Amino acid sequence: MKAREVEFEGHLIDSMIFTKALDIILDLDGEFEILEFRVGKKKDDPSYARMIVFGRDDAHLEQILKELHKIGARIPDIEEVELAEAPADKVLPDGFYVTTNHPTFVRYGGEWLPVEDISMDRVIVIRDGRAYCIPIDEVVRGDRVVVGEKGVRVVPPERPRKSTVFEFMGGRVSSERPTERMIEAIAREIYELKLKGGKIAVVAGPAVDHTSARNALAALIRDGYVDLLLSGNALAVHDIEISIFGTSLGMDICKGRPVPGGNRHHLYTISKVIAAGGIKKAIEKGIIKDGIMYECVKNNVPFILAGSIRDDGPLPEVITDVMVAKKKMKEALRGINMVIMLATMLHSIAVGNLLPSYVKTICVDMNPSTVTKLMDRGTHQAIGVVTDVGLFLPLLYQKIKEIEAKE
Amino acid sequence: MKAREVEFEGHLIDSMIFTKALDIILDLDGEFEILEFRVGKKKDDPSYARMIVFGRDDAHLEQILKELHKIGARIPDIEEVELAEAPADKVLPDGFYVTTNHPTFVRYGGEWLPVEDISMDRVIVIRDGRAYCIPIDEVVRGDRVVVGEKGVRVVPPERPRKSTVFEFMGGRVSSERPTERMIEAIAREIYELKLKGGKIAVVAGPAVDHTSARNALAALIRDGYVDLLLSGNALAVHDIEISIFGTSLGMDICKGRPVPGGNRHHLYTISKVIAAGGIKKAIEKGIIKDGIMYECVKNNVPFILAGSIRDDGPLPEVITDVMVAKKKMKEALRGINMVIMLATMLHSIAVGNLLPSYVKTICVDMNPSTVTKLMDRGTHQAIGVVTDVGLFLPLLYQKIKEIEAKE
Amino acid sequence: MKAREVEFEGHLIDSMIFTKALDIILDLDGEFEILEFRVGKKKDDPSYARMIVFGRDDAHLEQILKELHKIGARIPDIEEVELAEAPADKVLPDGFYVTTNHPTFVRYGGEWLPVEDISMDRVIVIRDGRAYCIPIDEVVRGDRVVVGEKGVRVVPPERPRKSTVFEFMGGRVSSERPTERMIEAIAREIYELKLKGGKIAVVAGPAVDHTSARNALAALIRDGYVDLLLSGNALAVHDIEISIFGTSLGMDICKGRPVPGGNRHHLYTISKVIAAGGIKKAIEKGIIKDGIMYECVKNNVPFILAGSIRDDGPLPEVITDVMVAKKKMKEALRGINMVIMLATMLHSIAVGNLLPSYVKTICVDMNPSTVTKLMDRGTHQAIGVVTDVGLFLPLLYQKIKEIEAKE
Amino acid sequence: MKAREVEFEGHLIDSMIFTKALDIILDLDGEFEILEFRVGKKKDDPSYARMIVFGRDDAHLEQILKELHKIGARIPDIEEVELAEAPADKVLPDGFYVTTNHPTFVRYGGEWLPVEDISMDRVIVIRDGRAYCIPIDEVVRGDRVVVGEKGVRVVPPERPRKSTVFEFMGGRVSSERPTERMIEAIAREIYELKLKGGKIAVVAGPAVDHTSARNALAALIRDGYVDLLLSGNALAVHDIEISIFGTSLGMDICKGRPVPGGNRHHLYTISKVIAAGGIKKAIEKGIIKDGIMYECVKNNVPFILAGSIRDDGPLPEVITDVMVAKKKMKEALRGINMVIMLATMLHSIAVGNLLPSYVKTICVDMNPSTVTKLMDRGTHQAIGVVTDVGLFLPLLYQKIKEIEAKE
Repeated sequence: MKAREVEFEGHLIDSMIFTKALDIILDLDGEFEILEFRVGKKKDDPSYARMIVFGRDDAHLEQILKELHKIGARIPDIEEVELAEAPADKVLPDGFYVTTNHPTFVRYGGEWLPVEDISMDRVIVIRDGRAYCIPIDEVVRGDRVVVGEKGVRVVPPERPRKSTVFEFMGGRVSSERPTERMIEAIAREIYELKLKGGKIAVVAGPAVDHTSARNALAALIRDGYVDLLLSGNALAVHDIEISIFGTSLGMDICKGRPVPGGNRHHLYTISKVIAAGGIKKAIEKGIIKDGIMYECVKNNVPFILAGSIRDDGPLPEVITDVMVAKKKMKEALRGINMVIMLATMLHSIAVGNLLPSYVKTICVDMNPSTVTKLMDRGTHQAIGVVTDVGLFLPLLYQKIKEIEAKE
Repeated sequence: MKAREVEFEGHLIDSMIFTKALDIILDLDGEFEILEFRVGKKKDDPSYARMIVFGRDDAHLEQILKELHKIGARIPDIEEVELAEAPADKVLPDGFYVTTNHPTFVRYGGEWLPVEDISMDRVIVIRDGRAYCIPIDEVVRGDRVVVGEKGVRVVPPERPRKSTVFEFMGGRVSSERPTERMIEAIAREIYELKLKGGKIAVVAGPAVDHTSARNALAALIRDGYVDLLLSGNALAVHDIEISIFGTSLGMDICKGRPVPGGNRHHLYTISKVIAAGGIKKAIEKGIIKDGIMYECVKNNVPFILAGSIRDDGPLPEVITDVMVAKKKMKEALRGINMVIMLATMLHSIAVGNLLPSYVKTICVDMNPSTVTKLMDRGTHQAIGVVTDVGLFLPLLYQKIKEIEAKE
Repeated sequence: MKAREVEFEGHLIDSMIFTKALDIILDLDGEFEILEFRVGKKKDDPSYARMIVFGRDDAHLEQILKELHKIGARIPDIEEVELAEAPADKVLPDGFYVTTNHPTFVRYGGEWLPVEDISMDRVIVIRDGRAYCIPIDEVVRGDRVVVGEKGVRVVPPERPRKSTVFEFMGGRVSSERPTERMIEAIAREIYELKLKGGKIAVVAGPAVDHTSARNALAALIRDGYVDLLLSGNALAVHDIEISIFGTSLGMDICKGRPVPGGNRHHLYTISKVIAAGGIKKAIEKGIIKDGIMYECVKNNVPFILAGSIRDDGPLPEVITDVMVAKKKMKEALRGINMVIMLATMLHSIAVGNLLPSYVKTICVDMNPSTVTKLMDRGTHQAIGVVTDVGLFLPLLYQKIKEIEAKE
Repeated sequence: MKAREVEFEGHLIDSMIFTKALDIILDLDGEFEILEFRVGKKKDDPSYARMIVFGRDDAHLEQILKELHKIGARIPDIEEVELAEAPADKVLPDGFYVTTNHPTFVRYGGEWLPVEDISMDRVIVIRDGRAYCIPIDEVVRGDRVVVGEKGVRVVPPERPRKSTVFEFMGGRVSSERPTERMIEAIAREIYELKLKGGKIAVVAGPAVDHTSARNALAALIRDGYVDLLLSGNALAVHDIEISIFGTSLGMDICKGRPVPGGNRHHLYTISKVIAAGGIKKAIEKGIIKDGIMYECVKNNVPFILAGSIRDDGPLPEVITDVMVAKKKMKEALRGINMVIMLATMLHSIAVGNLLPSYVKTICVDMNPSTVTKLMDRGTHQAIGVVTDVGLFLPLLYQKIKEIEAKE
């Protein structure tokens, strides 16, 4: 039997960290002995636990410690992080450390360095005395990559004491909620976040156009509630088609029925924008007169349109290399405090993968399984609003306007 | 080979009746020879077709004719309907005729009698010189039941020439529609139907309460837009719980979160209403002060609450025998011109089974498969609105009010 | 400020009971001070906690204690249960105690009486020195009903130490699981439960017939793996229609396409069974020769068919009064150790409401929201298998046969 | 009023072409007069119709003719196709013709040229005396692009007289089908298609790995039933992770539960394949020993892995530029007779867009809306099998083996 002492500190009980710790040890067939357990006597007191963990042998013990580490376990005697060189570009050294999406620190040169750009399923490299979280395709030969868990500290989010919309809606994804109240609560969160200077990214799928919620999104951008738009070719093409022809994929979005010859509108739109030299130029030339893309350009809200194999055209601003698009998305998300995901499974999961766990994440979709999959893929902080995005956005905008008027 | 002459008349081509007729013959391995085919030369002219149908033998020919009959085929020489006696209560004679949900006439005593209370999967009996469509459990020993297709004429609905919301939304069930426009169109249909003195039934599931759409439904009832409410115990109990406690199944419907001890509210509500002697008495005594049931009672809108095995209590007005409930529902639906189904699969399909095919039917559900199943079970006239009932009802009410104000 | 001492004992940490306790106190704005906290040092040691809970006043404190009570809190000085008389039939005294679905004991006459027939959202009455859990409609005037939480003890289930299929599939409902492995694991659970003399109920919807899984269910019944069948009219009618005509709602279940004239088969089937005097008689007379109902009757497996407003006929064995059906279902479920729910939301939730929390519950449905709703309604022990019941049942049967052959 | 004579020929009635023609005219507020209508008297006789179509003015008439054209209308006097030069790369001349996915011919130089590589929402260019269907991004300045409908002939598919699995499952997407029978019918179609030398493409999402259906797909490839695999990075990575570690995204696919430390397996897999120099090299080096990718390489089945913004790595074979990937997919699909789409909405719709309408298309997904969306986007020939791909593939393979053994 091999043993090692570990310690935990924080709101161990109501954040369920201690519960998870014991779960992990038991699930992995380990043993434990609690040396000390000090529960915070009052609401705001942290708790502290110290225990010995036993494994059958070194490998078994290490396996258990790896898992405990992910939920915040510390090994009391502080050790330097261990590094190994990447043997080639995009190739990792054995035993590399895989990141979580929680704030992470590495012990390097006797100090705790914060790991920059943390997000899940990446690796940590030390470059020029700083720690970066990077994806495998950015690893270059000779990079010093963190291996093992030694000297790495993860700070999982504590459950906030004050209840917010993010708490009451958390947990099970259900369609049987008072939707209007939820939208009010979200409107208030957005309003307050913006008051405090927070930044909001919107991730939107083309259903925003088809369901006529486009004007509401354009208004939110115009009024300064959106700091970044992440989407694809389809959203932009349909949005511009509405501006030019009043149709989305040839369907009259006022009357809700196909327009004769409307299927040409889609390709006409693409051709016109390409002929103009891109979305921005088409706006300057007066071809595009309103809508989501128009408001982004007019209000200097950055947008990133990532390509997909379903794209027609695509528009000149679309980034057709997905790895380039992904990298630009990651950079643009720096400093974002809240992400609102609207009716797009692919983009929601992709963006979820790029977010630290402390970014508030709202996922709006008619299909409950989009939210479930987002959480299954590790974006545990996401809350799901199972509703029709075509009604959600107009009502959200209206509620924000009501709050503005009151305050 | 056996042969028989049949004829069709009406908008055969654009209603696809002739297409279906040829399909049927080919699918059943029959043969045909067209004797005459006169296409209406202009938009409003009916078409006429006369053909000989061939079967391998009498049984085969009859099988084909049975299917052609359902889509409106007439056998030129008019014959009296054939009748046979029911050998016992709830027992049918061999070869009984099964109804469709289309308007149907039987040739009896040299005249075409309309079949009363037509709905699908029932039988026709002649009583006192009138033809009734009744379910199997209402057949009594000695009833003269229609057998075979002779002397029975079915008039399937023609596709209306003028496009309405019921046409443009028809066909495929899709969530990617401009929801707000669809709701506007439905609001206009409702408004115009009521102007003309039409009658509307609402079929509602308990999600109407959970999602805070209850006030909108109550307002629709108060303003005279609902002539009949069909639902179950749960809708009524949650509605009354909201009136008494402000919670639905213990969840605060304003804050959208559970109230401590709220799970008692459900049973308390049932107990209070039982103690008062029923919903009506509880309203008289001032225990129930608002909501769906309150408005029904105050505005003399009849309601039928059918029991289910999930019910707690149930409330005294709930009809616990399902066959009694079904019979009362059928009676109450007489003269109804439109049915709006809100977030309930069981009740929607049950009511769909009771409707003639000319009753306009709107089915609102977050889950597209509710609408698909409704149509699979024979309610082909249903149009589906795949959206969140919690946002649908308040917006529908608002749109109706806007139309009222304008006109 | 009012205070009261409470204590907890058991696997407090890994069963999250202590976490939930602190949550409850904080959510309700109470305060606490931990007097003693002894964590079990080793895997199998229970823990013990004693704390003082503070509320603003008596009402507030009681509110908190009510919630703590539900998760197993004990008030150290043992008091007798408090009782009040029901003022009328189906009417509850003020402050009545609402049951959970966990094993419950009441302190009466100086002893801890187990509450019989425990299930959720009911009340407890003392009759002849025994404690019964009954629904509101069985309360009769003068019944002594438990009020308040005093002298009531709830024993929530502890998380089992040994991992079983019920544990690994627990939690999130996902469709992206290795379905075949899950079915193997369930087959093993069923096999082992039967070896130990356990009893299994099957709750089945009509999709079992449409999807051709019917033969597998019949085989499971024949081979003794089913001790009780709970269903409705539709399952039985379609099953018998298959036996008589080879069709289900007129669709040939071998070829998967409608049979001409097949829509008559449904009513013919009902009429024939009614004419025979019921399902059992129709089997005796050789009209029904195989299938689910046939195997139930031949193998003396009890079945309960509860009516619904969608029913045609119904068959003589169907219980059309839902409250009578519900009562019979509750009685039949006594002693059942596992329930398998197959593609029916209504019946699954209804049966879930009738089960104690220690009955293993598997819910198989294509639609993940059926399982979510089942759990939202309080059947937290349910595990969901999101798959096609038409493939699930044949494979489950095959896997059980493989296990039988091996052992 | 402007008028023009048009004619139709073929199985006009049972293919509903004539119905659609009249619909189009009426929907667009046109008028018509039928000059001649000859219905084929017997099953195999084609029909012929000639009519005059009236519009308010030239523009209105042309609009109607454009739509009639799409369903096969011919303007009797044959005219040459009209061409206009593309003013710039990726920019279309005014009035360009948008393709359908039906076989199409253009009248050029007095002859009917078949349009090569037909698929929907593209344009037609004439290069070196041949007609090509190309996407907008392949148009180069000076290309002679077809404008208007003159001299273009579309041949929509006729409904086959013989019923196949593709017919009986067509129409409504329903989950309540006899799944096992449908799989048998599909197995037979596949077997017979391969017998005749047909080619089959499989489009697969990563759920194939998670749900343990991977071995069945690998076996289908090994046995020669797959001629092309279209997928993405995730499918390949998970498949290889299973080969190396026995896990898929860290979940043990035999036990169906996460393996401790398993989240590293995903990145390890990518790193190992990159280090080896790609999938093919990793197979040569013995790193990958079985599975989907292994069988593709060993059996010379081409595969195309298209990138997406969710990708980790990606593997060296993944094409990260989506427009390049799309072009390669289109080329690889030439000569394919059947496409089987497995649990992937993005890839299914993308591939659907690239297919001519005569390619048999089967879409297997747990979520009925995947199929609905595929059809809404124009892939009308798709049939949907709403089932669990984790059970579908093993059973499909078993059924094919049974057919092989019998024949």
